[in-house]
Amino acid sequence: MEKIKAAIVGYGNIGRAVKEAIEAASDMELVGVVRRNGAKSDELAGVEVVDDINKLSRKPDVAILCAPTRATPDMADKILALGINTVDSYDIHGGIWELKCRLDKTAKASGRAAVISAGWDPGSDSIVRALLEAAAPKGITYTNFGPGMSMGHTVAAKAIEGVKAALSMTIPLGTGIHRRMVYVELEAGYEYEDVAKRIKSDDYFSHDETHVIAVDSVDALKDMGHGVNMVRKGVSGNTQNQNFEFNMKINNPALTGQIMVAAARASMKREPGCYTMIEIPVIDFLCGDKEKLIRKLV
Amino acid sequence: MEKIKAAIVGYGNIGRAVKEAIEAASDMELVGVVRRNGAKSDELAGVEVVDDINKLSRKPDVAILCAPTRATPDMADKILALGINTVDSYDIHGGIWELKCRLDKTAKASGRAAVISAGWDPGSDSIVRALLEAAAPKGITYTNFGPGMSMGHTVAAKAIEGVKAALSMTIPLGTGIHRRMVYVELEAGYEYEDVAKRIKSDDYFSHDETHVIAVDSVDALKDMGHGVNMVRKGVSGNTQNQNFEFNMKINNPALTGQIMVAAARASMKREPGCYTMIEIPVIDFLCGDKEKLIRKLV
Repeated sequence: MEKIKAAIVGYGNIGRAVKEAIEAASDMELVGVVRRNGAKSDELAGVEVVDDINKLSRKPDVAILCAPTRATPDMADKILALGINTVDSYDIHGGIWELKCRLDKTAKASGRAAVISAGWDPGSDSIVRALLEAAAPKGITYTNFGPGMSMGHTVAAKAIEGVKAALSMTIPLGTGIHRRMVYVELEAGYEYEDVAKRIKSDDYFSHDETHVIAVDSVDALKDMGHGVNMVRKGVSGNTQNQNFEFNMKINNPALTGQIMVAAARASMKREPGCYTMIEIPVIDFLCGDKEKLIRKLV
Repeated sequence: MEKIKAAIVGYGNIGRAVKEAIEAASDMELVGVVRRNGAKSDELAGVEVVDDINKLSRKPDVAILCAPTRATPDMADKILALGINTVDSYDIHGGIWELKCRLDKTAKASGRAAVISAGWDPGSDSIVRALLEAAAPKGITYTNFGPGMSMGHTVAAKAIEGVKAALSMTIPLGTGIHRRMVYVELEAGYEYEDVAKRIKSDDYFSHDETHVIAVDSVDALKDMGHGVNMVRKGVSGNTQNQNFEFNMKINNPALTGQIMVAAARASMKREPGCYTMIEIPVIDFLCGDKEKLIRKLV
């Protein structure tokens, strides 16, 4: 069986995790890594590294986009137009439908498939949310995140005047309410009180209970672990009090990378177009023979 | 929008729950109930009740099969051949692939779709199992059932000589190991010790820790609640110790009925053929506009 030829575009924490997940997949091979600077490193020994996807000596079937989320829409659009499937983990919930519509056009024009928002939330959590809605159509689902590092809030805190380094932890308080624990190293000459005030009044933090703590080293606190607790209580037919719960405690980049690789596999089985994960049968994310998978998992 | 015309075949606990779920669905209507004896009852006032699906005055798009599991394969085969989609909750795990192959032929010949094993296990649990396998391809999943009544074990206990009435409860002990608590009313003239011995040596019970308890009334113990605790610990990429858990505490027939109605809806969007739930995108189980669903759930 011919292996799926995958390229990684962007090589930070997620790119690294995608590389590991590709190496662990028996049906996929890495044809190269695309980095802005095209720089090789020891961990990329034996891997073709280029600064432009067109320079890869073997054309990939699918490009797994591991750049910052805001950069991925344009990137996906360009790579799809080259006749290469794309997978991203675009995580701005309000923009997913618009991204789908945009990439759907490009994908159909080039006869390829894009899978978007393929991480854990949005992504695998979305599948659970949709499934629980099918199981109990009336009711409320709460998705509680953490404890774990929020990338978005960390970036927002770092951008505040007087902050040298920051880490924003998301703490779940239940019913979808979260506390923000913001650990900061202060720039020389700045007062804690002023910086804390600025963080708390930033739009990223002003709606949540936020605590700002000055520390000597943010790096000493960093841990890639994260968690989800999703709860739905609802009604099946006219039977009340149906209770569902989904929990995970995971390494964040490792799970994101693994889900992206599963989505890359699924992209190869799609008609041209752009798909979110809830539009794809779960069996298509898996490697292996259909009969064996159905016998094992159904 | 034209509503999906559904018929219910078989009217026990599950059939009743399916009726409630159809009534709660804005995109579906009940065109009739098929019962062996064709008997009307007060709760079926206003519903056409027949003893043969061909006698319904309006032809259904989809028949939801609520007969005992062993009867459903032949029933599905016949109804598919009439040009009607079918949904069953066939739950004999070892026979699902064979049933799929059999119904796939009939479905394709008649240009219709069948969704099989569409309950909660097999069914919605299968989707979660498959998703967790995609999230952490290496590892072990344990599905722990209960506490709740096992239909299969209850029927097996009832068939034992000296048992007038029985109820077999499944108690989860973790790592997929279960205890069987079997409550029995004895037939006159039988000794508890003899009956308990026969139950414990029956193939349904001999592999599990089984306790037999004589009671005055089995009926007084019956409760339709059930539960699942599914646990996976596995590896994403090469990152160990990824932990996932899915729990539910539910009314058993209500959830089964609701899932079957969701599967009936999904059957209308399928190419001819036979499908398990893991072969269907989760969004297709849901009622409503695609854009709204994606905006809400992804």
